[in-house]
Amino acid sequence: MRMVDLIAKKRRGEAHTHAEIDFIISGYVNGSIPDYQMSAWMMAVCWQGMEEDEVSRLTFDMMNSGDVVDLSDLPGVKVDKHSTGGVGDTTTLVIAPLVAACGGTVAKMSGRGLGHTGGTLDKLEAVPGVCVEKEIEEFKDIVRKNGLCVIGQSGNLVPADKLMYALRDVTGTVESIPLIASSIMSKKLAAGTDAIVLDVKTGSGAFMQTVEDARRLSETMVRIGNSLGRRTVAIITDMDQPLGMAIGNGLEVKEAIDVLSGRVSESDPLYQVCMLLASNMLKLAGLAADDGDAEAQLTDALKEGRGLKKLQDMLTALGAEDAGAVIADPECLCKVKQKVPVTLDGEGYISAMYAADIGNAAQMLGAGRAEKTDVIDPAVGLVMHKRMGEYVAAGEPIATMYVNDGSRLDGAIAALKGAIKLGKDKPAAAPMVHGIVQ
Amino acid sequence: MRMVDLIAKKRRGEAHTHAEIDFIISGYVNGSIPDYQMSAWMMAVCWQGMEEDEVSRLTFDMMNSGDVVDLSDLPGVKVDKHSTGGVGDTTTLVIAPLVAACGGTVAKMSGRGLGHTGGTLDKLEAVPGVCVEKEIEEFKDIVRKNGLCVIGQSGNLVPADKLMYALRDVTGTVESIPLIASSIMSKKLAAGTDAIVLDVKTGSGAFMQTVEDARRLSETMVRIGNSLGRRTVAIITDMDQPLGMAIGNGLEVKEAIDVLSGRVSESDPLYQVCMLLASNMLKLAGLAADDGDAEAQLTDALKEGRGLKKLQDMLTALGAEDAGAVIADPECLCKVKQKVPVTLDGEGYISAMYAADIGNAAQMLGAGRAEKTDVIDPAVGLVMHKRMGEYVAAGEPIATMYVNDGSRLDGAIAALKGAIKLGKDKPAAAPMVHGIVQ
Repeated sequence: MRMVDLIAKKRRGEAHTHAEIDFIISGYVNGSIPDYQMSAWMMAVCWQGMEEDEVSRLTFDMMNSGDVVDLSDLPGVKVDKHSTGGVGDTTTLVIAPLVAACGGTVAKMSGRGLGHTGGTLDKLEAVPGVCVEKEIEEFKDIVRKNGLCVIGQSGNLVPADKLMYALRDVTGTVESIPLIASSIMSKKLAAGTDAIVLDVKTGSGAFMQTVEDARRLSETMVRIGNSLGRRTVAIITDMDQPLGMAIGNGLEVKEAIDVLSGRVSESDPLYQVCMLLASNMLKLAGLAADDGDAEAQLTDALKEGRGLKKLQDMLTALGAEDAGAVIADPECLCKVKQKVPVTLDGEGYISAMYAADIGNAAQMLGAGRAEKTDVIDPAVGLVMHKRMGEYVAAGEPIATMYVNDGSRLDGAIAALKGAIKLGKDKPAAAPMVHGIVQ
Repeated sequence: MRMVDLIAKKRRGEAHTHAEIDFIISGYVNGSIPDYQMSAWMMAVCWQGMEEDEVSRLTFDMMNSGDVVDLSDLPGVKVDKHSTGGVGDTTTLVIAPLVAACGGTVAKMSGRGLGHTGGTLDKLEAVPGVCVEKEIEEFKDIVRKNGLCVIGQSGNLVPADKLMYALRDVTGTVESIPLIASSIMSKKLAAGTDAIVLDVKTGSGAFMQTVEDARRLSETMVRIGNSLGRRTVAIITDMDQPLGMAIGNGLEVKEAIDVLSGRVSESDPLYQVCMLLASNMLKLAGLAADDGDAEAQLTDALKEGRGLKKLQDMLTALGAEDAGAVIADPECLCKVKQKVPVTLDGEGYISAMYAADIGNAAQMLGAGRAEKTDVIDPAVGLVMHKRMGEYVAAGEPIATMYVNDGSRLDGAIAALKGAIKLGKDKPAAAPMVHGIVQ
């Protein structure tokens, strides 16, 4: 078998056999296939796509390119959630504790933020003392004890994805449903979970800018998961505006604690998306018969403070200096030198929001990374006061910026102001959830 | 400017600016753009194509990536011919002398054969003593004296093409009209000619298997040439069967000498294609008013033996030990241990020929190279006795193989027999020339 022939085959739009995909992935990981052939092949995949069976095999091979975590000695159905990345998306910190409080087992490996999107690890590290780098056995001990733990990727998981992603990043081959789906799913599967709820974001702040693309990605990932023996559901949710009101690591932990403390309205989009994702996790784990049952359990856990307690226990297990104090007064995570209200020019209904630009505004304040090596300030960021369709009076602040280093404040304000459009008429309400794929 | 953005731009199907193409080619040649980005970009070009202006700029940049031969101090319009490569295509050795005999200036850099296709340099070297590696000044001196010279590429011509071709060869990106056209034209333009007649082959023995593809390639190359100030014409000729009857280096020199000696019928396809190409060269060079004028001049030059004399003079100038003896008795170039007639099973009209397989049969006998480093036996090859549409009686030889090393004779015979199909009915005659693009 020669790689040049396989590139030509994909270029012609033909489907690879399992043996061919095995050859490509093992050859790339062991170095016998050079980057220049892999990048040409990946561009051919961007061009011609892949059939269902090809993507499943690709994912399977990527998953098996390194360590695969064995969670089989943990009790119950292990259930995970994965978001494709958004702005103000702090759902993990709400639903992992709630699901655990309802008897679920959540052993989750999470990621860091890059560009306009946040990452759960950065949020956890906003809590003083927390360390998310744990060995697998310690991680499993925490899950066994508390029912949940969220850590960074541990061990040599999916080296094929690390290599392929680094190459895609510099060769214009990031945008490809088969490559995105196999990248996400290989990591989730290698982390050892039994069931996965995928939160596929769509809109201005998401990688999938259209509902159609989000649906295609969802269908591909659900088929991959099911074909490889994991119960998988995808929920397509809106990212035309930030999900929560807070953008920034400490600010988002505070918002998660606010939800778990019952301080956020049930009509709030963050609350609603959390409930939907958590319900599906409970159903996949076999812990709830239907949506009504799941929501009742989750609401009870929330009202009784059991979710909040699970979060506190996890933070403590991860090394938090005083998790109780953080839970009691989460504002302590957001102490900054300066709070700057931001007003728009003019007045009117918010007719459009560019969530990615809002994320970038927070990143400019130090809440995120432009490059992987950038250092984050956990306290800074911004809190939105308005959502799509709401009326903004003249001079009324639409957001408050939490600032320590003012050197890029002007740029952040300009980015935020440019990210919000006002109109004369109240726009029609857009749905928060665009569909469920299972 | 970042290469990753330019890859993404081409991937989206957008056209590059001149500055962008300059950046890509200079960056690739100077090593700042790595192979893995170049191969992804070239696959995106295969996918999305290029506009006319992009291909012209690409060709211009490739041409200027190394030395450009200056032929301006040679008299008259310098006119070149280029064939996209075929089987039994010995036109250069016929038309370069004929055009020179009619007052044309033919300063030509040629190539070697690879795979099923032959190369003029290998044919010239079949003549004992001939050396095709000359310095530019010696090359120009020969042209100044004789009106023609054919040598190998000299100096550091088009390094961008050498790098790009080597990469395309291993990344499935060979087949692309813009990349093929710019590769051919950059080399022709860097060799310094004023006018170019392109012989674009189409059919089973050609790179362009359909007339439609050959026409697209022809149009692209003619536009490139004209946009860069070179008079350019493309002639689309048939390569569904070998052009001449001889396939092998000494055998093809002999056939060229036979044509120039008047021993080949005017109805012979090789004769006809040579006349058409040479006529167009004379017209482009301003030496003939029209086809009739050109053909009359060429026929005179042939009948008076002036073409043959030009070939003899060039062979002598290139170092031939006794060009006169070769011209007088070209059979001396084809002395082999064994001549093997090949017969087919059954009888009938030749309804199909696979010219590439016939070329491969000759290559197995040692007439060509499977790899660039293979050594050629100049005397071996095969001579066809039949053409498409002709009747083959039971037991009648369709070809004679010229053999020195019999180790792959069985394979060569099998390849040749498999390359020819017999049918009950005489097939309709196919045209030799499919069109002229100017």
